[in-house]
Amino acid sequence: MTKFQEFAKEYQPRVNQDLQAEVLEQTGQQAPKVWQEMLTYALLTPGKRLRPLLALAVIDSFGQSIDEDAIQAATALEWVHAYSLVHDDLPAMDNDAYRRGQLSVHAMYGPASAVLVGDALQAGAFSLLAGLTEVSAEQKVAMIATLSQKAGANGMVLGQVLDMDNHAVNEDKVALAAVLDQVYQKKTADLLQAAALIGGQYLGLNQKSLGHLADFAGAFGLLFQIQDDLDDYDQDAAEGVVSLVHLVGLDQAQDLVMQLKIQAETALAGLVESEVSFDPELLTSILSQIGA
Amino acid sequence: MTKFQEFAKEYQPRVNQDLQAEVLEQTGQQAPKVWQEMLTYALLTPGKRLRPLLALAVIDSFGQSIDEDAIQAATALEWVHAYSLVHDDLPAMDNDAYRRGQLSVHAMYGPASAVLVGDALQAGAFSLLAGLTEVSAEQKVAMIATLSQKAGANGMVLGQVLDMDNHAVNEDKVALAAVLDQVYQKKTADLLQAAALIGGQYLGLNQKSLGHLADFAGAFGLLFQIQDDLDDYDQDAAEGVVSLVHLVGLDQAQDLVMQLKIQAETALAGLVESEVSFDPELLTSILSQIGA
Repeated sequence: MTKFQEFAKEYQPRVNQDLQAEVLEQTGQQAPKVWQEMLTYALLTPGKRLRPLLALAVIDSFGQSIDEDAIQAATALEWVHAYSLVHDDLPAMDNDAYRRGQLSVHAMYGPASAVLVGDALQAGAFSLLAGLTEVSAEQKVAMIATLSQKAGANGMVLGQVLDMDNHAVNEDKVALAAVLDQVYQKKTADLLQAAALIGGQYLGLNQKSLGHLADFAGAFGLLFQIQDDLDDYDQDAAEGVVSLVHLVGLDQAQDLVMQLKIQAETALAGLVESEVSFDPELLTSILSQIGA
Repeated sequence: MTKFQEFAKEYQPRVNQDLQAEVLEQTGQQAPKVWQEMLTYALLTPGKRLRPLLALAVIDSFGQSIDEDAIQAATALEWVHAYSLVHDDLPAMDNDAYRRGQLSVHAMYGPASAVLVGDALQAGAFSLLAGLTEVSAEQKVAMIATLSQKAGANGMVLGQVLDMDNHAVNEDKVALAAVLDQVYQKKTADLLQAAALIGGQYLGLNQKSLGHLADFAGAFGLLFQIQDDLDDYDQDAAEGVVSLVHLVGLDQAQDLVMQLKIQAETALAGLVESEVSFDPELLTSILSQIGA
């Protein structure tokens, strides 16, 4: 088991516990039971909890113990990720009735409820960050600015908009590859960057170190998505799905993976240099998952 | 023209200008033009801009001049209100092709885009508050906590959930009236309360004064919704729509309006007592619109 797998094994259950507890807290005593059920169902969709775990891994990498407040900061990322999945699966969007082997939220509770569940989850993420108790107001504002920008009209949601455009596209392969690169950045890497940054902002790191974290997580996010394409290469080809890997070719995609790994490692080396308390082992171990 | 009508005439254009400018700022230089168009279309839907105007009216009532930063704080409320209208109109929700005489966002750009426009508008509201420059970080966190709670799983979105339940209801008129009362509170009054509170938090008022503002805006929100029912009384009856007014009867509804007006005026009197700089004229004038 890698160091990150051990870390995930320890903290995934705590993240899940908190997600469940936060629903009760945010809906209030008088909320209809079925409403709490829907929100819990959406948040506890089977998954790796990669975004909160990345935020927590950053905190752990600086030798900080992980308390309830840190978990709450990290789960805010899962509230946003969960909302995006619920809305993605809607009939008006990807129309997926299943998500990781169980009924998607709209298939289970109807599309109107799924719209509202997603909307409430997004608002809840900001409530969680505003309600932290162990960090300064300045840190909370920085975390909220990060999350709202990386998730919003110039971040994750824009990634979805660009992705929709792709479905309608054009034969110009170079332009399409550029768009896909942007889609991957916005749709996947932006929220992973937010996770790493929120971990760093929780610790009160300076702008230079936050820059290294953003570089690391940006490269990691793209790696993560490209590796996903590589894994699905034959299946996508059979189904006629055009991924970035199909556009640029296998060789160039593997070169890109090597390049991005170097970029991520360089960012970690920068952190080692600028922060004496930083231990790169755990974040290096996240990287090593890719392609393993 | 009442004092509030004059105030609205002065500040509505500035609010609209800011809404437009903020879209460009929040989407970034490279955003597709059509994406900026969609967001602008949603934000500039014809309307009174009541929520930002209420926040600004609170600021003005304390003798503070209204600068760009105050307008930005106030427009955050319109970003949330606009997102809720875009999602309400979706085919999966109310399926309205028109909103105030023009095509709704989904009718204009398709339902997938409408989901994404709403999602981006909600995130943008929190970016706007996090990006204020003239208030302390503590004030920004307080405003963000207010907006996320009043708009979220125990606020405006819960109002929608309860409202959906109503459509499916039951013959128990008393219970239904209680639910409607809660629907009105959550669906309409909560965001108006957020508007008044955000105005007060922008000024840095103490908890006691914020409590008076919340009481005022809560009563005003219910008044606003009940007056709407009274205005539509005959039309609703003809169309078989069951409003609170139909449930409790015209006489009792008019009693309720009187009661709520007294409640709102009492809250303003409380503010006059606790804040020497507070002039109740403008907020009293908002109240006088109701039923006029």
